[in-house]
Amino acid sequence: MDYYSSQISKLIEELSKLPGIGSKSAQRLAFHIINMPEEQVRHLSGAILEAKQNVRYCKECCTLTDKELCPICSSDRRDHETIMVVENTRDLAAYEKTGKYNGVYHVLHGAISPMLGIGPGDIRLKELMTRLQKEEVREVIIATNSSLEGETTAMYLSKLIKPTGIRVTRIASGVPVGGDLEYIDEVTLLRALDGRTEL
Amino acid sequence: MDYYSSQISKLIEELSKLPGIGSKSAQRLAFHIINMPEEQVRHLSGAILEAKQNVRYCKECCTLTDKELCPICSSDRRDHETIMVVENTRDLAAYEKTGKYNGVYHVLHGAISPMLGIGPGDIRLKELMTRLQKEEVREVIIATNSSLEGETTAMYLSKLIKPTGIRVTRIASGVPVGGDLEYIDEVTLLRALDGRTEL
Repeated sequence: MDYYSSQISKLIEELSKLPGIGSKSAQRLAFHIINMPEEQVRHLSGAILEAKQNVRYCKECCTLTDKELCPICSSDRRDHETIMVVENTRDLAAYEKTGKYNGVYHVLHGAISPMLGIGPGDIRLKELMTRLQKEEVREVIIATNSSLEGETTAMYLSKLIKPTGIRVTRIASGVPVGGDLEYIDEVTLLRALDGRTEL
Repeated sequence: MDYYSSQISKLIEELSKLPGIGSKSAQRLAFHIINMPEEQVRHLSGAILEAKQNVRYCKECCTLTDKELCPICSSDRRDHETIMVVENTRDLAAYEKTGKYNGVYHVLHGAISPMLGIGPGDIRLKELMTRLQKEEVREVIIATNSSLEGETTAMYLSKLIKPTGIRVTRIASGVPVGGDLEYIDEVTLLRALDGRTEL
């Protein structure tokens, strides 16, 4: 790409390494960045580096945070006897946005996937088991995704935790609110039927 | 978003200011960046700031470059008597990618748009007219977009240049190669008919 200056080409190259950003988007972003006020470019460039350098795992729940203990684990207004297990920090954020869950979390950073060679040792399972032994826990809510990997992880976890006597639950799977039955896959429809509740 | 650490929130906020990046994409990108090797994050962050700080306009054709004169304007293998006028550097790159155009360019950085309040004084028209007076130019090829703004700019330019006696041409508009007539709008179809050539 010698029709762009080397600085622009380099920026386009770096941007196109990001997920979901193809060469066209990278070009568009690069030219946008070049036309942005320098102040704003500094903020963007700085935020990228600072986030990388300062973000670490909460020593309790393993979520990404910038303190030793994340705001949720260090809050005494949360119910520390209920732990929701999620695959990643974005899933934690999704439940936090509902504003209705008052327990704490455990972030696995992945799910068991024999296909991709990700075993129980590759996700933050050991940290969860240590927590369950150390702390007083009443319930573990498994909120891994409803995918093959998420389900495998949920099964594995429940088998691991049940012998300890702690209650293990799984979030419901079924037709999403506002979902049109016509467009929903058969597996979900059957799951919704199996999980039907009394009215 | 206090369920993310402030560093992550700040990064998400900065990323979501970019065009075409909504809050979901910004989150996805932010977590990807946090998980990238630090070396690579440094490259990305650096490329952003350096591009902004070092990129300027070519003093000849106004394209974005990092030298006083862009590689095309400073090349003696290019035909400097033919100038293709484009709206922006990406359009220049599109023609450069064809590898078949041997002339030089002039980048307007926009198009005349009465709707958006962009007049002839807001784009790099004066610079083009100065070039036409100073240099020996045989032909000006107007390659602005086939949009209302692009066409307006083309008309304005041709009226401005014609009195100087320099040949002014406009790139053809019609059915794109591989295009299916069925799916092409009427205006394009009529344009293609008007522009028909002998076989």
